[in-house]
Amino acid sequence: MSPVQTMMRSHPTRVEIDESLLIECIDACMEAEQACTACADACLSEPNLPMLRRCIRLNLDAADVCNATARVLSRQTDTSWGLVSKVLQACIQACRDCGAECQAHADHHEHCRACADACRRCEQSCTQLQMALPT
Amino acid sequence: MSPVQTMMRSHPTRVEIDESLLIECIDACMEAEQACTACADACLSEPNLPMLRRCIRLNLDAADVCNATARVLSRQTDTSWGLVSKVLQACIQACRDCGAECQAHADHHEHCRACADACRRCEQSCTQLQMALPT
Amino acid sequence: MSPVQTMMRSHPTRVEIDESLLIECIDACMEAEQACTACADACLSEPNLPMLRRCIRLNLDAADVCNATARVLSRQTDTSWGLVSKVLQACIQACRDCGAECQAHADHHEHCRACADACRRCEQSCTQLQMALPT
Amino acid sequence: MSPVQTMMRSHPTRVEIDESLLIECIDACMEAEQACTACADACLSEPNLPMLRRCIRLNLDAADVCNATARVLSRQTDTSWGLVSKVLQACIQACRDCGAECQAHADHHEHCRACADACRRCEQSCTQLQMALPT
Repeated sequence: MSPVQTMMRSHPTRVEIDESLLIECIDACMEAEQACTACADACLSEPNLPMLRRCIRLNLDAADVCNATARVLSRQTDTSWGLVSKVLQACIQACRDCGAECQAHADHHEHCRACADACRRCEQSCTQLQMALPT
Repeated sequence: MSPVQTMMRSHPTRVEIDESLLIECIDACMEAEQACTACADACLSEPNLPMLRRCIRLNLDAADVCNATARVLSRQTDTSWGLVSKVLQACIQACRDCGAECQAHADHHEHCRACADACRRCEQSCTQLQMALPT
Repeated sequence: MSPVQTMMRSHPTRVEIDESLLIECIDACMEAEQACTACADACLSEPNLPMLRRCIRLNLDAADVCNATARVLSRQTDTSWGLVSKVLQACIQACRDCGAECQAHADHHEHCRACADACRRCEQSCTQLQMALPT
Repeated sequence: MSPVQTMMRSHPTRVEIDESLLIECIDACMEAEQACTACADACLSEPNLPMLRRCIRLNLDAADVCNATARVLSRQTDTSWGLVSKVLQACIQACRDCGAECQAHADHHEHCRACADACRRCEQSCTQLQMALPT
């Protein structure tokens, strides 16, 4: 079992949504937060830094939103599904915006390519979880 | 000038939205993050802790979402207004849910009453800023 | 009463350290987190961005450490004073490093000057609180 | 390659410390942040919640400190090693305190047992990295 799986399966109350989608989504948010944090910093060290302004800005936004999303999803006590839905929508938008900008620099910077991948994975995981929420 | 005002007015590019609404909203998010963090902890020390489960959970969610919102709003370089809008919607929902739960305990716990106030102020500030975003 | 004061005074258990120093320190950490977040972003928009690499990097570090410090200090249930001490030491170092770098750009950028002030205030508050911790 | 490895190896400047220790430590901090966040929430749902007050409190502290540590370590531009050292010391203390408390509940709660493991791994990784820092 992955570390996130171990934690989510040991919760005393039964998770009300598809557990594998939830675990996958928490993992994807954590990965995207780290990728965006590292990509922003790697951009700072690039010779063409002035061209990477928007990339850094969106990286920082996405890192913060992914962190909040991973934390909200890691809680299963008395969940407000309306709140989870709004948080997922914010995360989807943050990863879409950041992923698109990173993709534009993917040919020149390996960290932007890898970060675009992490954002895409996170956007997809959040979208799938969003569709599986209790109505 | 307040500290947030000083920072936001010293940005080299002109803020694209109503500056006073923006500053007020950042302040409200910071205040709500701290109130929710402190309220969750104060609840932990209450004799009727088992009745405060949902309050603590929503406090923790709101603290995390308010932090992400304050950070996104503190940035003004190449802003994605679509992202700001989604983040504000998540923050409005988080503060509404947490504020309602805190209000239910306001007669018994001063920290819940004060936290409900902070959540209400943040929900209102985010709603006003949301309506003033560029279309 | 300030918002932080209201929250900290409504805690069911008596705060074990000088309450006014604690409140001042939480306030200073919150202010420094916002100042550093906004200064990093303002630097991103400056024409001499390549000269501000180190400033942005230290701004981001200080924002993260100040946030963790404000949260730890906002909790008063079963505090580990050894942990509070280490967190304060990390925050003092983060604000000292960031403040020194911001000060070096203070003549050219108003946001760096204001952020240096916020870092200095935070470093001083953390130092005073550190000296007042239970032994 | 793990996601963290991919990101850290794509940085334009050579990492100044043992790369595998750094990557392992970022991973351990991310895992501990999630474990502590999930354990705090799982404790909230336990029938013996009043006995888990200190566990929840230390979980929340450790989650915040681990997050700041993972972010600081994910940056490699113009690093302040003095700051990294202080942040690692705070993280070691946070994971030691939280891990000890979780361990005390490990026989009764699987999430406390798993969280104690994550804290121990993080404490060890931070300690190893601490010893490998440039002097």
